[in-house]
This record gives sequence, structure tokens and C-alpha cells, in this order.
Amino acid sequence: MSKLWGGRFQKSAEEWVDEFGASIGFDQELVMEDLQGSIAHVTMLGNCGILPSEDVETIIDGLQQLKLKAESGKLEYLIENEDIHLNLEKMLIDLIGPVGGKLHTGRSRNDQVATDMHLYLKEQVNEISLLIAAFQKTIIEQAEQHIMTVAPGYTHLQRAQPISFGHHLMTYFWMLQRDKERLADSMKRIDISPLGAGALAGTTFPIDRESSAELLGFTSVYQNSMDAVSDRDFIVEFLSNSSMLMMHLSRFAEEIILWSSQEFQFIELDDSFSTGSSIMPQKKNPDMAELIRGKTGRVYGNLFSLLTTLKGLPLAYNKDMQEDKEGMFDTVHTLKGSLKIFEGLIRTMTVKTEQLTKAVNQDFSNATELADYLAAKGMPFREAHEVTGKLVFLCIQRGHYLVDLPLEEFQKKSRLIEEDVFEILSPVKAVERRNSFGGTGFEQVKKQIEQGKVLL
Amino acid sequence: MSKLWGGRFQKSAEEWVDEFGASIGFDQELVMEDLQGSIAHVTMLGNCGILPSEDVETIIDGLQQLKLKAESGKLEYLIENEDIHLNLEKMLIDLIGPVGGKLHTGRSRNDQVATDMHLYLKEQVNEISLLIAAFQKTIIEQAEQHIMTVAPGYTHLQRAQPISFGHHLMTYFWMLQRDKERLADSMKRIDISPLGAGALAGTTFPIDRESSAELLGFTSVYQNSMDAVSDRDFIVEFLSNSSMLMMHLSRFAEEIILWSSQEFQFIELDDSFSTGSSIMPQKKNPDMAELIRGKTGRVYGNLFSLLTTLKGLPLAYNKDMQEDKEGMFDTVHTLKGSLKIFEGLIRTMTVKTEQLTKAVNQDFSNATELADYLAAKGMPFREAHEVTGKLVFLCIQRGHYLVDLPLEEFQKKSRLIEEDVFEILSPVKAVERRNSFGGTGFEQVKKQIEQGKVLL
Amino acid sequence: MSKLWGGRFQKSAEEWVDEFGASIGFDQELVMEDLQGSIAHVTMLGNCGILPSEDVETIIDGLQQLKLKAESGKLEYLIENEDIHLNLEKMLIDLIGPVGGKLHTGRSRNDQVATDMHLYLKEQVNEISLLIAAFQKTIIEQAEQHIMTVAPGYTHLQRAQPISFGHHLMTYFWMLQRDKERLADSMKRIDISPLGAGALAGTTFPIDRESSAELLGFTSVYQNSMDAVSDRDFIVEFLSNSSMLMMHLSRFAEEIILWSSQEFQFIELDDSFSTGSSIMPQKKNPDMAELIRGKTGRVYGNLFSLLTTLKGLPLAYNKDMQEDKEGMFDTVHTLKGSLKIFEGLIRTMTVKTEQLTKAVNQDFSNATELADYLAAKGMPFREAHEVTGKLVFLCIQRGHYLVDLPLEEFQKKSRLIEEDVFEILSPVKAVERRNSFGGTGFEQVKKQIEQGKVLL
Amino acid sequence: MSKLWGGRFQKSAEEWVDEFGASIGFDQELVMEDLQGSIAHVTMLGNCGILPSEDVETIIDGLQQLKLKAESGKLEYLIENEDIHLNLEKMLIDLIGPVGGKLHTGRSRNDQVATDMHLYLKEQVNEISLLIAAFQKTIIEQAEQHIMTVAPGYTHLQRAQPISFGHHLMTYFWMLQRDKERLADSMKRIDISPLGAGALAGTTFPIDRESSAELLGFTSVYQNSMDAVSDRDFIVEFLSNSSMLMMHLSRFAEEIILWSSQEFQFIELDDSFSTGSSIMPQKKNPDMAELIRGKTGRVYGNLFSLLTTLKGLPLAYNKDMQEDKEGMFDTVHTLKGSLKIFEGLIRTMTVKTEQLTKAVNQDFSNATELADYLAAKGMPFREAHEVTGKLVFLCIQRGHYLVDLPLEEFQKKSRLIEEDVFEILSPVKAVERRNSFGGTGFEQVKKQIEQGKVLL
Repeated sequence: MSKLWGGRFQKSAEEWVDEFGASIGFDQELVMEDLQGSIAHVTMLGNCGILPSEDVETIIDGLQQLKLKAESGKLEYLIENEDIHLNLEKMLIDLIGPVGGKLHTGRSRNDQVATDMHLYLKEQVNEISLLIAAFQKTIIEQAEQHIMTVAPGYTHLQRAQPISFGHHLMTYFWMLQRDKERLADSMKRIDISPLGAGALAGTTFPIDRESSAELLGFTSVYQNSMDAVSDRDFIVEFLSNSSMLMMHLSRFAEEIILWSSQEFQFIELDDSFSTGSSIMPQKKNPDMAELIRGKTGRVYGNLFSLLTTLKGLPLAYNKDMQEDKEGMFDTVHTLKGSLKIFEGLIRTMTVKTEQLTKAVNQDFSNATELADYLAAKGMPFREAHEVTGKLVFLCIQRGHYLVDLPLEEFQKKSRLIEEDVFEILSPVKAVERRNSFGGTGFEQVKKQIEQGKVLL
Repeated sequence: MSKLWGGRFQKSAEEWVDEFGASIGFDQELVMEDLQGSIAHVTMLGNCGILPSEDVETIIDGLQQLKLKAESGKLEYLIENEDIHLNLEKMLIDLIGPVGGKLHTGRSRNDQVATDMHLYLKEQVNEISLLIAAFQKTIIEQAEQHIMTVAPGYTHLQRAQPISFGHHLMTYFWMLQRDKERLADSMKRIDISPLGAGALAGTTFPIDRESSAELLGFTSVYQNSMDAVSDRDFIVEFLSNSSMLMMHLSRFAEEIILWSSQEFQFIELDDSFSTGSSIMPQKKNPDMAELIRGKTGRVYGNLFSLLTTLKGLPLAYNKDMQEDKEGMFDTVHTLKGSLKIFEGLIRTMTVKTEQLTKAVNQDFSNATELADYLAAKGMPFREAHEVTGKLVFLCIQRGHYLVDLPLEEFQKKSRLIEEDVFEILSPVKAVERRNSFGGTGFEQVKKQIEQGKVLL
Repeated sequence: MSKLWGGRFQKSAEEWVDEFGASIGFDQELVMEDLQGSIAHVTMLGNCGILPSEDVETIIDGLQQLKLKAESGKLEYLIENEDIHLNLEKMLIDLIGPVGGKLHTGRSRNDQVATDMHLYLKEQVNEISLLIAAFQKTIIEQAEQHIMTVAPGYTHLQRAQPISFGHHLMTYFWMLQRDKERLADSMKRIDISPLGAGALAGTTFPIDRESSAELLGFTSVYQNSMDAVSDRDFIVEFLSNSSMLMMHLSRFAEEIILWSSQEFQFIELDDSFSTGSSIMPQKKNPDMAELIRGKTGRVYGNLFSLLTTLKGLPLAYNKDMQEDKEGMFDTVHTLKGSLKIFEGLIRTMTVKTEQLTKAVNQDFSNATELADYLAAKGMPFREAHEVTGKLVFLCIQRGHYLVDLPLEEFQKKSRLIEEDVFEILSPVKAVERRNSFGGTGFEQVKKQIEQGKVLL
Repeated sequence: MSKLWGGRFQKSAEEWVDEFGASIGFDQELVMEDLQGSIAHVTMLGNCGILPSEDVETIIDGLQQLKLKAESGKLEYLIENEDIHLNLEKMLIDLIGPVGGKLHTGRSRNDQVATDMHLYLKEQVNEISLLIAAFQKTIIEQAEQHIMTVAPGYTHLQRAQPISFGHHLMTYFWMLQRDKERLADSMKRIDISPLGAGALAGTTFPIDRESSAELLGFTSVYQNSMDAVSDRDFIVEFLSNSSMLMMHLSRFAEEIILWSSQEFQFIELDDSFSTGSSIMPQKKNPDMAELIRGKTGRVYGNLFSLLTTLKGLPLAYNKDMQEDKEGMFDTVHTLKGSLKIFEGLIRTMTVKTEQLTKAVNQDFSNATELADYLAAKGMPFREAHEVTGKLVFLCIQRGHYLVDLPLEEFQKKSRLIEEDVFEILSPVKAVERRNSFGGTGFEQVKKQIEQGKVLL
């Protein structure tokens, strides 16, 4: 073994252990939150008379200097100082001397790191919600332009009934609306301060947790110190909500990919959101949609990582919990990137309306209209289906569609059918007549879009 | 191949396909919801003048008869009728004749099955919330009895600081509180009616979706028919919330198992919630806690199944979605069973207070007290740590604990230490003094429990 | 709480606990394996002189009677007897008296249940391998008929290069081949006997584990008794292999669904493997392919369940492990059903060759041919791409394809292009010329199919 | 939206898209493999007469220069060049001029990237296997020192039977042995060349795939070009095998954490593999074991990410597949780190034998001995259990253990008990007598260790 350790890998056991245990490689993403948390903490210590005001001023001054350095990217982190908290503490003491050590009074790394993550996620969830809203706005704009665009509606990827293309697009609006609502619901479990919970049991110093929470903009504080330091539910909930969002994007992405294929040709992606081929200029790979669909796996994986890590952990803090961060950061970046890209892709795509019109006129998706027509005239539903089926079969044998059938042929199958059947069979009419609440009827889609705008 | 099909497996291709595609084996769990939904639908059809009142009466009468049969377990389902919806429809037509076919007017299996699942989950989530509340009540009762019971508090499964055992138990109260809140938040996405959305596009009949929704007790209706039939988010959200809940139970179960071990001996499980060994009567296997911990995997798996199934599905209904049910049913049963069992287990367990007292007096978990004591007297925090470390090390060398050290030895390391240090070192005092908000101080725990009672 | 327990749920705590802990509801699937294992065990006990031969005979006779009853479905299991092992033991004692209790000599439930599962999975993995082979045979048969059928080859779901449709189908042959190989590799970790490992430590009786293993047809025995009873790796490995197999089927299913759409129309499914619509007789929903694609989630979920359950379990047996069975059974049934259905679906589908031919002649997927043609004549690859791109662009502007361009237009862009370019541009020629090893050239596909046949 | 894009995020849409689509941020880990693959490819092109030898020499010379630069970390990658392949190609052309473009003859990025990953994983799996073997060696060394150390054996985390501590440790040897075997089995699916498969269909150039495979040290080549470029099974299989390995490590880690607790005190970790507390020098947090247990989630997550990404992807290459890399790299690093750390931790830990001896003498885990003793004397097994139970109960009432009971008390319960019972009851004897194959008997453990050594 010594060969493996000593020769091949050229690091001492200690270095390996340090590197394996260190989180500074990724938790530096929390630098601003950590400094912000420290400023609030020390301010509160001053207000409560736990630290003299001159110490408080010195410490805050030092933290502000570190903040400026952090903003200009000038902090240099060391693996031997493990994590962002210890790195900053060492830097502070280097800067202002031993008094910097007093910052840690009435606080522990356990409540400190939890505070950082609550602050971070609160900010990020707000940004993500804005990006969702921007995407929804774009969807509404496209939908509004295509209320009257009739397109095939699918079940089982088989054409089922003609629909308004705007109606189809709006489906994604509602999915995203739920995503946004879930994020909003989760906020009450993110926007809560663990600061002052100590290592696990609270502290003997007469601190004022409500005050430091207020300074940080938190709405409430944890009621139980052990819960405060061992709770990672708010991250799991974020990853669950993110998995749902990515699932929605994967469904939309799948449709974008289908619609961009030579077989469908329902849309054309803008050059800036697709990848061309130097030898086939007509070819546009829907790379961005594929990548977002693919990244769904990444976010699901992040969720399951954390669920696995937390399974069966006794109270309170365990080192396993250090694994809570990378998946959270990665998910935040994935979501923000995916939403921005998808918004642009939808905003810039061209809907090929003539192709959609062509499609709906060359199929039997108006068969349901005929069945409904018969049922409305009193024929039991199942019988109406059968009669329709026979008429469609007749058309297939003759190589044409239902509109091409003369009235007498219709009437041979049922006397209930009259001249008005031809209006019924038009895809546009079919869409128009589906005017039940929430249906694809143009009027309904307009109302739906108005409702959507109100929600934005 | 024919041998495989024909000989070995002794079923025709058609039978295999039927069986593979049928869902009646499991979706019969929705029988009451399906009948309830049909009654509301046909009532609405009558109110809107779509069906004549005599038809409506006949159909409702038939449905009521089926309901009675279902309640007494007398319905016999056939695989060839695929699912619960078709089985019931066939039974209805057998019972009341072809008029039964009219029930399907303005409705499709796609909105029907979605309605059933919304109804089902609404009921189940309410029942689960009640079971959580009952469990919380039991936790509070145990916690209240053990506010003053001092126990070791752990980080890294190492003794860190003495705590109130009631404080420890209350941690699970707050986890469960969040679980209940999440279920309540999810209700607005469960309690919404898809009925009348049709196959995907709405219907041409002048139905009143708000009316049927109201008859079923739904608070709102879907705004978009395609969303209504293809949305399974409410099930994913339920499975996410359930995974979180099981994760919490797995953490509690892990502790129960540890505490029941011969090494810890902190609690004794009641005979009715543990399994004995015929040859070792003293042995009590914490089977129930182990099983609940194990079942965490099952619920995580159900969540991942559905997320996988939905990934990349184009709109609207696809047969893949039939896979949404079994995991949902299984999760409901697992949660209800786990909560009931765990409540009983905690209610009937005996906390061995003398063993806990013994434990806290034989360790160095009061070392933090000493460091805090020094810091409170003005010593920088990091220096206080160092001094304390040296004193603990001295004790270890001498084979005793901090309380056994004479004052002069303390003072050799720091003049700040005075006679009052001995009060500081008592575990009971240590707990008492951790009186910051949410801390383990007895007074705080009492307040916390009062707060908890208010929430129940 | 008493109301919840006593009133609403109408079961005593004890009944709840019994039911929650019992596995007889699902582990009865192991009945034959359990009896087989017991017969081997008691035979060995006799051979080793641990039990007198008359006891052995009596016990075997009793077990044989139970076996007959089991085969005819006449055994009645009781929840109060927990699991299949205890149920059978009680039945045996009822049948032959207290001597039945001796069966348990030198054996524990821990090694007994492990033995049952090894026996079960060995049998099932063999059956599944046969079903894979049967499916591969069908794929080869279809591929062989379509070696010369030229079809579009896709990347990014965009047409990229023409290929042999047989070549495309054969891709799935190789995926399945790897699945079969992995199952074969796993056999050495399934086909191994834990019998005689006892509760965890072996036994004091002079048993002969090799002998009982041999009687059961096992190739080897576990070297460590604690490993023998706590190892569930062979199930995890099976679930991993199954997840991979389902992933393959999901990819094939996705293509079947695409090819069946009105937009692609590359294949037509047989009536027996698709679901029609009574009102649209032309419509064929690819339900079976969708369902298999959907069931991928189920198997992934089963894998994740068990991985979660086993995470962090200390040695040796823990009750959590009871959760190993349902996912295994469910996966076995899902795999067997999916393979049988998919085989039939592929065997009976019609490939619409005229539609494929039409497709390859109406696109620019022959552009790569032109670029390769130029590169072969010495033009640097990247330059060849550019020239080709310009020519394609010219065609798009003129509204025709590359073959429609006069030679002089080609030569305006590059003098390297000569009359032979038109042969190059034919899709059939394009496929034929891709004759590198493993390529889509007809000759290569033939060789590949021969190679495939050898492997079956 | 423009504000979001333009203001806040200060990047153009194009930059966002580029960054989102680029993989150079992580696939630079493949730099050596990519250069190695290119050298082999161009060598083959020369040997086959496809490129003139002077071009081949120039290109190889350029690639060698890039290799030197890469080794000394001097390559600078650009996001606008997307990935490692395009970055290197551009660098090559900058270095040697347009002739560099010829390197791409008869190759595509699709087969190139697949080749890189096969090369990478082959190397890494070999390194991981060596690390497993090194860990196994350390386990054997510790086990060998503790063959005669008697320790409590657990089921349900309850003491069940005394065992050899060496036997317990060896359980992990066998788990790791299976892990190594699985990796070895997987090698035949990793060690296979996709090079020359082109974009999906092979190439028209007369390349020799076997030759380039041989130059790269591959044992075989893919039989089907579409399979070659779309196969990611070998990565999924690696992630499955890695998940199993991490599950094993998580079980071992859980035990290390338990054994290090003040309640168990079975081992003491070396300072270099644990983290102390500055104020509690006696405290040693088993951070490394916790972290490894926690990282189990990460690897499970990586597996599920890729399984999700691949679900339902049509042939052949799709951009989703770019998501195959980060999880693979992360898993490789996690495994290597975890194995090295765990090896060191076990090598340097101290087993507290006196504590283990104390433990086994103060419990009833010898009760099974008594029951076996009675059964060996002819008492039916279930009856033997009952008698033993009564005797244990008697001891509990009297506050002592079985060895403290006088012979007459034993004989009151059964005349079969004689003087030799006391030898039977000694934990050492209990272990010694469990001499069935694979049992915990000292002789068996010795044999087992010998067998283990042979396998290393």
C-alpha cells in the first residue's frame, strides 16, 4: 500500500485526508452570505452588550474589507483551512488581530453554515421565480399570436383532435405556474433563521436571535436549536421542486425536438438557439432542447443524492451533511441556465402555420366531431362511435377524408346526419365548438390567456 | 419463439397483451371515487339539460346500486374490461341497459381517471395529516415528561453537550410539522377538478365544469383542458412530500434502534412494538423501527419511478401514465402504516432516565461550558478553547472528569477561573443555562412545547 | 389517539403491528424454493448423521405433501405466522407432529430466506435470458428482411445519413446481447449457497454445506457466514442489469412510437399489439410500446429502493432487509412481460419500405457523401464541408435536392467534382459505400447478422 | 426579459447559449485520451494509404507537441471551441497549418468522444481495482491479527452470538471481492473500440478499425457503428458497480462510526484519520467515515442521472448524451478518494480487545449455545429454545448471567444438561465450536483468510 500512497499518488495521508474532507473547493460560493451573516451576528452581539462596541466596530470593519476583496475576486482560499467559514475567520484574524476570534462568541460552525445556506437559497429561489415568470410571459406572447392557429392535438403521439396551437402552448404556462407556486410555498421554510442555535443546544450567552434574523431579512427563527442545525429539508424541498420543473422542461423540450424534425416541421428554431451543420445548412440541431432534456437527469440525481445522504442520520449534525451543497449549487445553475435558454428559444422560434394547417386537413382527427354530433342528436355515445368508425373506414378504402364524402353516404349510415355535418367536420369549426370551460375553443383560449396575464 | 409463447407460458399473445395492458388489478382501489365522479357528472349533465332527467335518474340509480355492491365487496372485475372505468361502465349497462352509455357524454376516460385520482389523494392526504398530528401529539406528551431529563446530545454520534431529552424529542415534532405544512400547501394543487376536460381538448357539449366540481367538493377547476388530463404533478408532489416524511421517520428510527441497543440502553420498547427471541427473553428486536427505516427506500423508489416515467413525455395523454397509480397507492399504505406504528411505539416506550443521567455524568461534554465560561469573562474564543483542551487532557491523564479537578489546577491554566466554575460544570446547570431562544434550557423547552401545542 | 386506533381503523395495535411486519403477503412467491431448500437441508442432516434416517424420511414425506398442495394452490397462509418460512414450518408440524421442529436444526431463518432468494433468482434469470434470446432472434429475422431497405439515419432526431434499416434494427440486437452477457456474468454471484450459515455465525452441528448446496444445484458456497446472510448484492446487481435492459427497451419503444406516428409512418403495428379507436379505425395507439417505456421508471425505482434500504446498514441481518423482495418480484414480472410483448410486437410489425424510400430521397442526408467525395480527392476535410454547404444552400434556394443540380453548377464550386458525383449522391450507393467494418454498408450488415446468429 | 438578459446577467444570448452548450469546462479531463486516440487514428490512416506519410508525420508531430504541453498544463482552452475535441483540433491547425484538418478524415466527433471515454474508463477501472485490492489486503491484515479476538455479533443491532472479530472484518473482504469481480466482468464491455464508426453509419474510407483499436490497446471493436456511437452502457454499468461499492463502504462506515462512539468503544481511530475538537481532546469525530457514508448518495445520484438521461432516447447520437461525463468523472474521483481514505483508516485503527472481551462476557449472547447443546442431545429445536428462554429469564430476575447459574438449576429445567454445559457457555468456546464451513470458528476464519490471500 505504501507504494500506492507514497509513490504513485505522491501525497501524504494527511494531505489526502485534508483534501477529502475540505469543502472550500465548492463552499466558497457562499462567501457573500457568510460575511453578511457574520456582520449581522456581531452587530447583534454588540447590541446585546455581549461584545464591547469597539470590538464590534473593528470586526465589522474587517468583515467589510473582506467583502470588498471578495467582490473583486481577490480572496485566496486554502485547503488546509477546510471551509469558507474557517478561511474567512483566519483572514479576519490576520487582518485585525486576535479580536477577530471574538466573532465566534455564541455561534458555532453548525448554525453558521445553515444560516449561509438559508440566505443563499432565499436569494436564488427569488431569482429562479423571476426567470420562470419571464419564461411564462414569453409563452403567453407566443400563445397569443397562435390562438387561431389550428394544429393537431395528440394522445399516444397519434393525432386525436384538432386544437388551438396557443392552447397547446398555454399548457406549459400552467405547469410553470405551479412550479412558481411551489417555490413560493417553500419560501416559508427557507426564510427562517438558524443563527444562534449553536453547535446543537443553543448558547449560554444572552443573544437575541430575533434581532440577528431581522438584520438578515429573515421572517422567522427556528424554534428548536437541534432542528435548526440538522434541518436540510429546505434543500430537499428545493431539489424536489427543481426536479418537477426540469420534468416540465423535458416534456416541452421533447416536443420542440419533435416539432423541429423533418417529419413534423411545425416550427423552425432561430439560428442563435440551434446548431447548424457546416455541410448541411438546412439542418438545425435542436441542441439546446436536447441538452435541457438531458439535464433533467442531473437534477433528479441531485435530489436522490441528498435524500440518500440524509436517510437514517441520527441527530444532530453529522459530517455526511457536508454533501448537501454541491447538488444544490449545481441545481441552481442548471435551472437558471435552462430557463434563460428555453425562454430565448421559444421567443425566437417561428411557428410554421401553413404546415400546421396542412396537417390538420389531412387526417381523421375530426372523427370525434362526427360522433359528438350524433350523440348531441340523441344517439347513445357508444353507438355514435360505431357509426363514425364505419364512415371513416369507408373513406380509407376510397383514399379520401370525411369532408370528401357525399351527404347520401353519411345518411346511409344514419338518418340523423344532415347538411350541417360539413361545418362540423371543419377543423377550425371543431376547435371553435370546443367551448367548454378550459377547452380549446378560441374564445376559451383567449379567456385563459387573459387569466394568465393576471397571474403574472 | 412459438414454443415460448404457446407451450411454456400457455397463454395466447392476445391474453398476454390484455393482461400486460390492463390496470384493473390495481385501479380497483379507485372504485368509490369513480362512482362518485360519475354521479356528479351525470347530475350536471341533467342540470345543464344535456341529458333528460329520466335518463339521469336511471343512471344515478344504477350507479347507486353499484356503490352498494362495491361497499360490500361484491363487484367482480374482469381483466378483459381493462380498467375500473370500463368495468363499471359495462356493469352499469348490464344493469340498466343501453342508456348507461349516455353517462359518457361530454367526458372521456382521460379526464375521468384524473378526477378519480384527485378525489382519492385529497381524501388520503387528509387522513395522513391527521395521523401526523396524532404522532406529534404523542411526541409532545413524551417530551413533556422528559423536559428535565438530561441526556447526552450528539454530533458525529459523539457526545457533544448535555441536552434536555424532551428537547431532543421535540426536534421530530418540528420535522413533522413541516411535513404537515407541505401536505397542506400541496392541497391547492390536489383539490382541483379536471372533470369535463375530455380527451384533451374540452367538449362541444354545454357542460358546466364548475358545477360538477362543486358537487364533488373541489375548490377549483383546471384552466386548461390539456393540462387537466396530462398533469400528474400533484402525485409527484405527494411522493416528494412522502419521501421527506419517510426520511424523517428513518432518522427517528435509527435513533430508536441505537437507543434500544445494549450499548446505549436509553429506552425500552414495549413488547407489543418489538419482537422477542424465544431463547433470549431479554432481547427485544426493534423490528418495527428497522422496517420503517427500510421502507424509506420503497417510497424514494416510488418517487423516482414516476419522475422517470414522466420525463420527456409529449402532450397530452400517453399510456405511460398508467404507471402513476401503483406507486401512489403503495406510498399511501406505507405512510399510514408507518405513522400508526411509530406513534404507538413512541407512546409505549419507556425512557430509562437513570441510564441517561449516568451517561451525562461520565464524559467531557461539559467542556464547552468551561470554554463559554472563559469567553464570557473576556477571553477570546479560540484561546478559551485551548485552555479548556489542556484541562481536559490533564483529567484524561489522571483518569477522572473535570468536576474532580481541584480549583488550583484550574487556576494554574487561567486566573479567570473561580469557585463558581463547579456549578458551571454540572450537566443539569449546563442545560439550564442554555437559555437562548430555541435552546435546550428547560425554560425554553417548556415554551417550545407550549408553542407546539398551539400548533396542533 | 385511541379514537384513531380504536374507532376509525378498527384494528388492535397488535394486529397493525403483525400486519405491518408480516411478509407472507408477498414472500409466498418463494413457496417452492422454500420447500426445495428444506428437503435438501434435511437430506444433508441425515447424511451427516445429525438426524436419524427415520426422522429425515418423515420430514421429507411431509415436505413432499406440502409441495403437492402448493402446486395445486391449496396452501392457506396466515398473517400471524409472519412469513413463508414460519407458515410452512407450522403446516409441517401440524402434518407430521413435533418431529417437524427438527428440520430447523443447524439452520436459521436468515440463511433459509437467503437460500430461497438465490434459488428463485437463478431460475428467473435463466428464464429472462431465454426471453432475451428469443427477442434477439426476432430482431435478426426482421433485420435480415431489411438489409437492403434504405432508411434515414438520425442524429439529434434530424436526418443525418441514409442507412440500412436492418443495420438500425441490429443496434438493439447488440444492446440485448450485452444485457444477456451481464446476466450471465452475474450468475456466479447468484449461483452460490448461503445454506448452513445460520443466524450469522455458522453452526456447531457438523453439517456439510457443500452437500446441501450440491443437492440444490448450486455451484459454490459462501466463504463467510456473516456475508452469506447479509449479502443482497446479487439482488441489487439483478436490479441494475434490469434497469439497463429496460433503458434499452425504452429507447426502442420511443422509436416504435415515433415510427407509428402519422408524421413518420415508417411501420404499422399489428392489431394484436396496438389499441384501436372505435371512432377512428385508422388510428392505432402504440399502447404496448408506451407502457414498456413507462415501466422503465418502475424498474429504476426498484433499484433505487433497494440501494437506499441497504445504505448504511450494519452487519449482519437487519429487519430492513425484508424490503428486498417485492421490488425483485415486481422486476422479474415486468421484465418477462415486457420482453414477451416486445418480441411479439416486432415480429408482427410491418415495415413500410415505400415510405422509407420516399423519405431518403427527399432530403439532404446525402450531403456528407459529397463532402467525403471531395475529401477523398484530396481536399482538406473542413474545406470539403464548406463547399458542400454552399451547394446545399443553392439547392434550397432553388427548391430542389442535390441530385437535381447540373454538373456545371457543381464544378463552379470545385473542379474536383466530376460526372461520377451522381452515383455518389444516390442514397442506396451512399449506404453501400459505407463499407468500413461495422458500418451500414449492405455487405457489412450481412456479416453482422451472420455474427449475430452465431452468438444466439 | 431583455433586462434580465441584458442588464442583470450582462451576457448576450449567444454567450449564454455557447456557455450552456460547451463541455470544455469538464471534458478537458479527457485531453490525454483524445490525443492518444488521434495519434492512433492518423497512424492507421497512413498505414491504410488514406493519408500520405508526410501528412501523417506532420500531424503526429503536432499531436506530440500538444501532448507535451498538456502534460505540463500549458494548454489554454476556449469556451467558444465547445469541447476538448474542437479545442485540440484548432490548436493543431494553429500549430501545423491546414493539413491538421485531415486528421478528421474517416472519423467524426461521435466516435471520437466515445473512444476517449472507453480509454479513460479502462484506465480508471484498473486503478480502482488496484485500490480495492490494497484495501482488501489491509482488511486481511487486521483480520489476521484478530482471529482470536472474540466480539459480540449483531442482528437487529442487538447482540446475538459471540463471533471472531476477524470473521466480522472478513465480511467486507468478500463484499469488496465481488466489487472487484464485477469491475473485471465489466471490462469486456469497456475494452472495445468505437473508433471508425463515424457519425453513426461508418465511413466510405477504407479504414482498418482493428488496426487503430490495436494501437490503442483495445481487445475488440464494436460490430455495429450505430451501437458504437450511441452506447453509454459501459458508463451506466460502471456507475452501477460504483453504487454497489459505495453501499458496501457505507455499511462499513456505519460500523466504524458506531464502534468509535463512547457507547461502543470497540476501536480507536488514528489521529490522522479523525478530527479532534480543540476543547475536547478526548473527542475524535469519525469525519472520514461519515463523509464516505454521505458520499454514497452522490454516487447513487450519478447513476440515476445517467439512467434518466438515457431513458427513451432514439438512435443514434443525441446532445443529451453530453451529460454522460461529469457524473462519471465525479464517481471516479469519489471512489478513488474513498478507497484510499478507508484503507488508511482501517490500517491505522486500534481495536480495543479488552473492551470487546468485556462486552461478550456481559450478555446473553451465549443463550443460543445452550439451545444448540440441548438440540444436539436430541431435544426438538423449538423445545430447546423454550427451555433456554426460561433459564435466561431466571438469570435476569437474579441479576446475573448464565455462567453464574448452578448446575442444579439447569437440571431443574432439563435433565439433559450436564457439567459440560459450562464449557459450552464460554464465549470463546462458543466461537470455537461454530466450526461449520464459513462459520466463525477460529479454524474456519484462518482457512477463510488463507483463501482470501490466494485471491489477492
